[in-house]
Amino acid sequence: MNVEKNKIACAVDIGGTKTLVGLVTGDGEIIAKKRFETDITDDPYYHLKKCIQFLSNCIEEYNLNEQSISGIGISVPGLADSQNGILLKAPYAGWTNVRISEFFSHFYNGKKVMLANDVNACALGELMFGEGKKYSSFVWVTISTGIGAGLVLNGKIFEGEHGIAGELGHTVVEWEHGLQCTCGNKGCLEAHVSGNAIAKIAGEKCSKDNTSQFRQYFCDNSLEITAESVARAARDGVIQAREIYDTAASYAGRAFSYAVNLINPGCIFVGGGVGLSFDLLEPGIRKVMQNSVISETNRNIPVTATTLGYNASLLGAASLIFI
Amino acid sequence: MNVEKNKIACAVDIGGTKTLVGLVTGDGEIIAKKRFETDITDDPYYHLKKCIQFLSNCIEEYNLNEQSISGIGISVPGLADSQNGILLKAPYAGWTNVRISEFFSHFYNGKKVMLANDVNACALGELMFGEGKKYSSFVWVTISTGIGAGLVLNGKIFEGEHGIAGELGHTVVEWEHGLQCTCGNKGCLEAHVSGNAIAKIAGEKCSKDNTSQFRQYFCDNSLEITAESVARAARDGVIQAREIYDTAASYAGRAFSYAVNLINPGCIFVGGGVGLSFDLLEPGIRKVMQNSVISETNRNIPVTATTLGYNASLLGAASLIFI
Repeated sequence: MNVEKNKIACAVDIGGTKTLVGLVTGDGEIIAKKRFETDITDDPYYHLKKCIQFLSNCIEEYNLNEQSISGIGISVPGLADSQNGILLKAPYAGWTNVRISEFFSHFYNGKKVMLANDVNACALGELMFGEGKKYSSFVWVTISTGIGAGLVLNGKIFEGEHGIAGELGHTVVEWEHGLQCTCGNKGCLEAHVSGNAIAKIAGEKCSKDNTSQFRQYFCDNSLEITAESVARAARDGVIQAREIYDTAASYAGRAFSYAVNLINPGCIFVGGGVGLSFDLLEPGIRKVMQNSVISETNRNIPVTATTLGYNASLLGAASLIFI
Repeated sequence: MNVEKNKIACAVDIGGTKTLVGLVTGDGEIIAKKRFETDITDDPYYHLKKCIQFLSNCIEEYNLNEQSISGIGISVPGLADSQNGILLKAPYAGWTNVRISEFFSHFYNGKKVMLANDVNACALGELMFGEGKKYSSFVWVTISTGIGAGLVLNGKIFEGEHGIAGELGHTVVEWEHGLQCTCGNKGCLEAHVSGNAIAKIAGEKCSKDNTSQFRQYFCDNSLEITAESVARAARDGVIQAREIYDTAASYAGRAFSYAVNLINPGCIFVGGGVGLSFDLLEPGIRKVMQNSVISETNRNIPVTATTLGYNASLLGAASLIFI
């Protein structure tokens, strides 16, 4: 393995349920990786200590000395103050104002420590290690439990006037019959297309019709109803599952059309758990966009699954150090 | 008048029906101005010569010598290549690929000549001479015959990957019962809220009901049905006119909510002919935005009429030289 040992980043990807830490080269090669549960306790620093412990294990196993490490990049779920390295709010865990960069700096004295919101980290990862490098501007969309977007504009993350740009998940895509969203509004993209939404819609469809092929599918295969199992049902030809994904796709197409008309990105990259079912979503997304964006140029803007796969956020964390 | 004579821009604002030329100081004071019809002939250079003639008159009348002029800023309606100073396409006039900056450079040898799309010019004018200077990022929206937006992001005009960002007028705001738009799609903001749309909707409302108070209003006052006269009717208490503006406002609120969620601007400035009726639009815009943007911060983002008034685009043209 041809690794530039003098250009290695420690990467930390704290997710809502799992955390990844690893060592990543300047070429985007993950040379060590550990995965463990995210401890949702009252004390976020307890979990951060664990991250540092696992990182130390990686460093030891790979036989690196501290001089080889360029810095520590951290991706966090929730609202982040990237300038000051603070996780302002992580709703899923109830954590607020966690001074993450400061905490890591104590352990890695003098090293560069950088922090970003997970979606922005993914977008940066795509820019540095993925297809994003082909474009000056693009939108990264995570479709997972929730939905968020990261904007790379003229080669840089754009965070907005108050650091809260990218709330594509909360643009309204259904004005007439909008489903209730956790944000309080109705008809948000997240309420119709997120993993939670797809599972909920499928669950309601099943309970309405006890005898349907749809319900039977989950029983026969001993599957819980999740966005993933609904995708599997769709691929196995279960019509109701296919319909759920088709509807989700057309709503995603609406939200993407808003973004394309407004900022004319070079590309839209889709990642996240539901994004792994992009093949089911793509035709519906394209169909709606054809009739809702202006100009041939915008209609031809690629909408594509990320090439970074499961490691998008970990690579994104590393890219914070290299960029 | 305390004018810094060594900091004066020639400004040219070519509109669809009228053209303004003038002299503007670095403080945004218009010290001379001429207004004339835009000649929609096959030869756009004929009209450009006229602009230069009127500019020369301004310069003579103000007794300026050429040394006092910092440069010539030009605002054009339509798709512009601002880098190369070319008006790529002005649909209303049928002009394509007009090398405007080159043409002006011949006459003003060695002077800085800058060109921008009219909406981007307005946004820059707001940044330099208006309330825009309070924000690092904002959206300028012209609601006129058509609708377009200019984006100032981190203090600079953002044009997108292919130079066509800002098509807020063509984001879909009505997915179920969308009116036909000139762009070919249905339900665009422009098809529901532009000056043309308001006049058309009002005209249809009148012809459906020959005896209504609404129709009578225009007859009694010898008014043609335009966005402006409908606004006057609304102010005079004609219910149907008020309803037309209320509906337009709620559609504008939808489009603005898309922009606010996605890019978190510091402010939305509204200009253009219909923008002059902003008082009629504001309550409806705010009402819709309250239920369609996420976070208290975004809900409090000001949406306001430009302070630059009729001269926004002329001042914008001048700002191209000073910025």
